Amino acid sequence: MSKEITSRAQDYSQWYNDLIIKSNLADYSAVRGCMVIKPYGFALWENMRDVLDKMFKDTGHVNAYFPLFVPKSLFEAEEKNAEGFAKECAVVTHYRLKADPNNKGKLMVDPEAKLEEELVVRPTSEAIIWSTYKGWIQSYRDLPLLINQWVNVVRWEMRTRLFLRTAEFLWQEGHTAHATAEEAIAETKQMLEVYADFVENWMALPVIKGVKTPNERFAGAEDTYCIESLMQDGKALQAGTSHFLGQNFAKAFDVKFSDKENKLNYVWATSWGVSTRLIGALVMAHSDDDGLILPPRIAPLQVAIVPIYKGDDQKALIGEKVQEIVKQLKALGISVKYDDSDNNRPGWKFAQYEMQGVPVRIAIGARDIENNVVEVARRDTKVKTSVGMEGIAAYVKELLDDIQLQMYNRAKEYLTSHITPADNWDEFVKLLDEKGGFVSAHWDGTNETEDKIKELAKATIRCIPLNNPQEEGVCILTGKPSKERVLFARAY
Amino acid sequence: MSKEITSRAQDYSQWYNDLIIKSNLADYSAVRGCMVIKPYGFALWENMRDVLDKMFKDTGHVNAYFPLFVPKSLFEAEEKNAEGFAKECAVVTHYRLKADPNNKGKLMVDPEAKLEEELVVRPTSEAIIWSTYKGWIQSYRDLPLLINQWVNVVRWEMRTRLFLRTAEFLWQEGHTAHATAEEAIAETKQMLEVYADFVENWMALPVIKGVKTPNERFAGAEDTYCIESLMQDGKALQAGTSHFLGQNFAKAFDVKFSDKENKLNYVWATSWGVSTRLIGALVMAHSDDDGLILPPRIAPLQVAIVPIYKGDDQKALIGEKVQEIVKQLKALGISVKYDDSDNNRPGWKFAQYEMQGVPVRIAIGARDIENNVVEVARRDTKVKTSVGMEGIAAYVKELLDDIQLQMYNRAKEYLTSHITPADNWDEFVKLLDEKGGFVSAHWDGTNETEDKIKELAKATIRCIPLNNPQEEGVCILTGKPSKERVLFARAY
Repeated sequence: MSKEITSRAQDYSQWYNDLIIKSNLADYSAVRGCMVIKPYGFALWENMRDVLDKMFKDTGHVNAYFPLFVPKSLFEAEEKNAEGFAKECAVVTHYRLKADPNNKGKLMVDPEAKLEEELVVRPTSEAIIWSTYKGWIQSYRDLPLLINQWVNVVRWEMRTRLFLRTAEFLWQEGHTAHATAEEAIAETKQMLEVYADFVENWMALPVIKGVKTPNERFAGAEDTYCIESLMQDGKALQAGTSHFLGQNFAKAFDVKFSDKENKLNYVWATSWGVSTRLIGALVMAHSDDDGLILPPRIAPLQVAIVPIYKGDDQKALIGEKVQEIVKQLKALGISVKYDDSDNNRPGWKFAQYEMQGVPVRIAIGARDIENNVVEVARRDTKVKTSVGMEGIAAYVKELLDDIQLQMYNRAKEYLTSHITPADNWDEFVKLLDEKGGFVSAHWDGTNETEDKIKELAKATIRCIPLNNPQEEGVCILTGKPSKERVLFARAY
Repeated sequence: MSKEITSRAQDYSQWYNDLIIKSNLADYSAVRGCMVIKPYGFALWENMRDVLDKMFKDTGHVNAYFPLFVPKSLFEAEEKNAEGFAKECAVVTHYRLKADPNNKGKLMVDPEAKLEEELVVRPTSEAIIWSTYKGWIQSYRDLPLLINQWVNVVRWEMRTRLFLRTAEFLWQEGHTAHATAEEAIAETKQMLEVYADFVENWMALPVIKGVKTPNERFAGAEDTYCIESLMQDGKALQAGTSHFLGQNFAKAFDVKFSDKENKLNYVWATSWGVSTRLIGALVMAHSDDDGLILPPRIAPLQVAIVPIYKGDDQKALIGEKVQEIVKQLKALGISVKYDDSDNNRPGWKFAQYEMQGVPVRIAIGARDIENNVVEVARRDTKVKTSVGMEGIAAYVKELLDDIQLQMYNRAKEYLTSHITPADNWDEFVKLLDEKGGFVSAHWDGTNETEDKIKELAKATIRCIPLNNPQEEGVCILTGKPSKERVLFARAY
C-alpha cells in the first residue's frame, strides 16, 4: 500500500496530495476547490477543535453563531477589509430555482427571484459581527465581549490544495470588543500565545511568533500577529493569526460605548483564527514516505493492535489476551482498536496503520502468547521492541509521551537549523534556492523593497519575530540602513 | 424585568419572541430571515449537540464534512428531492465583487465572474453526499457507511420565526448507506429511537413516534419517521425526522456495490436530522410568563447563587461560605455561578435568572449565615425552601433530578390529556378550535382527503403512530371506510 504514494524526493507536492487521499483524511469533491473531509480527517479536526475550544473557554471566551451571509452593504462598510476580500467572494444573487421549460427534469435559476441586495458568503465575519455588536454594546459594563465561532467560510481561491487552500474551509474566528487599546492588544497577544501553545504542545510543531509587515497584514487590521511554522521542504506556513483591529470596525459600524465618565468612545477590536489548514501543516511537517505521522495527543487513534494467527483457535487465544490489554489501555485514557478482521492480512494492516499515522502498533502472535510478550512498533522512528505483557499499558503510555516529545524535538531541531542569516543578496538567494527555511536578513522597512524582493526571490517576509534583537545593518536589496533583521521565506 | 415580556394569554406568539430575545438565546440579524445565536443560546445548543453526538457515536456513526455548495446538475439529479427544495434555494451565481465605478467606495458583483454552473447553498445534503458515496462504495465490504455531519443549511423561507423557521439554521444530518433494505429500515428506526430518547430524557419533552403520510414525506424518501411534540398552545411541532430513502439516491447517482456473490446492486439509504428548531420546541413547551424553564440536564447553567448583603463585611462573610458550597456543587458535576457583582440588586438578579430559566437559584444573606441555612428556589414551580448548609450539595443534586422528572411529567400529562378522539367532523373542528392538541380520527387514506381537511380545518396529519391499534371506522370527512385512526393537529 505504501508503495502507492509518491516519495518526497520525487515530488513533494504530489507526495502531499497522495498522502491526504491514501490516508483517508480527505477527498476531492464535485465542487470546484472544495473538499470532503472524510471521517478519519474529521476525527483529527474534532480532537484539535476540542482542545482549542477548551483553551478559548479557559481564557474567558464563549461561543456563538452569526449568519453565513453578509449583505453587500455591510460587507463594504469597512473599506480595507472589503477591498481585501472582494476578489474572492462567492455571491448569492437569487433565492429560488424553477423547472427549466426548455429542459425537461432540469432546473434553472428563477429570474424573478432576484435578491434586492446581494449576499456575500462570509469570507470572514468582522462585518456581520460588528454590525451586530452595535446593538449589544452601550456601556463599559457591556465590555469586554469575548466571542468565538466555529464555522465554515468561503474564499474563492483560484489555485486550491487539499487543506492548505480550499474555496470552503472550516475555522474558528474570535471577535472581541474592548474598552481600551491596551486591553485589545493584550487580548491579541494572549490569543497568539494560545495558538502557539496548541501548535507546539499538541501538534508537536514548533513555531516562530512574530508580527506581520504592513504589506502582509489582514485587511482592516492595525497589526497582525502570527505564528509561522516550517515544512519539510523548507517552505514556511502561516499556522495562525491574531489581529489587533484598532477602532476600524467600530468606526465603520458606529459602535460606541459610554465610559465610566459617561463619555462616548469607539470600541477597540481584535479577531483571531485558525483553520483546517492546520491539518495541512501537520501532514507536511511530520509525515514520511510511508504515510502520516500523527502526534499522539491529537491522533484519532493512538494504538492499533493486530493479531497474527493461523486458524480460529489461535485467533481466539490471542483475542482473549488482547481484551485484557485493551482494557488496561482504555483505563489509562488511551484510544485503541483491535483489528481482528479477516478481510486483510497483517502486512496489509501494518501498512494501513502506518499510512494513517497511528502512533503505536502492537502485533501479537501465538508464539508471543507463549512467551508472554508483544511486539510494539512506534510509527515515528519505526523502531520495534519486544515488550513483556506485564505492565504493557504503562509502557505504551510512556511511549506515547515519548513519541510526542521526539516529534516536537525533531521538528524543533529542523526549524532551528533552518533559520540562517544572510548578509548580501547572493547569499540570500542561494540560501532560498539551496537550503530553504527562514532567512534572517536586514530590510529597509519599505513596502516597495518588500515587493521587489518578493518579485525577484519569490520570498516574503514571514514575520518580524517578537522580542527581535535590535542590530544595525543594511538592507539586503537596497543597502539602506536597517535596525533589525526580519525573517524571509518561500511560503505556502 | 419579567414585566417586559408579553404574557402567554395575551399573545402566545409575541410571548415566544419576547422570551427568546430577553433571555439572550438569540437575536435578529441584519440578514433577512437569519438569526444570531447568542452565547447563552449557543451554550444550550452545545449541550444538546454534545449529548446527541455521543449517542450517534455510541451507535457506530462517525462525523465528516461535505461541501456547503451543491452544483445545480447534482442538485437536480434526484428529481423529487430537487422539486421539493427548488423553491427555497439560495443560489451562488458569481465568485467576485469589484469596485463600483459609479459609486465610490462601493462594490458591485463583477459580471465577468459569473459561474459556469450555479451553486445551490445546501438545503440538505443528500445530493452532494451521494455523488461522493459513488466513489467510496464498490463492494459489500464498504458497507454500511454510517456518517453524520453537524453543519449549517439554508432554506429560503418566506415567513421566518426565531429558531422555529429561519433561512439559515444549524443541524445534524446523518446519511447512511446499506446493503439491504432491511438494514436501512432498521437504521431509520434506530435513529428515531435515539431522537426520542434524547428529546424525552434530556429535553424533558414527551413525543409521539410515528410515520408520516405520503403527503408529508421528505422529498425523495420512501418513508419518513418522525417524533411529534406538543406545545403549550395546543399546536404540534415536529421535533425530528428519520427517512428511509430506498434506492432513490443510489439510482440518481448510480451508486452500486458488488455483493458476496459478486452481483451489482443499488445501495440502500437513510437520512435523519434534528436542528436548532429543537430549541424553539424547548422554549415553547416548558416556559412561563416569567421566562424560560430549562431542563437541568441540558441547561447551560444549573445553579445561580445570589448574595444578599449590606456592606463589604457581610459580602466577604457570605462569599467565604459560598466558596465552600460552589466547591461541593462542582465536585458533583453541577454547573454553578456565584453572582456577587455590584452592578445589580438581588431582585434584578432573581428576575434575570428566572428569565434565563436557570433551574435552581440559591439566595444567601447575613442572617442565613448565622442560622446556617440558605434559601433554595426551584425555577419550575417557584417553590422556595430553607435548607441547612450541611448537605446542601446533595440536596441540590436531588432537586435537579426532581426538576428534570417533574418537567417531563407535567409535559407528559399535558400531552396525554391532549390526544382526543373525534368521531365526526363537527367534533373534530370543535376540538381543534377549542381544546387544541392532537385529535385522533379516522381518515380514508387518500392524499385528496388529507389536503381537503388541511384546507378546511387548518390541521395536518402529524403522523400515524408506531404500533397503531387497528380499528374499523369511517373517515371523519368522507365517511369512507378506514382501518386506523391517525393523529391530526395544527402545527408549527
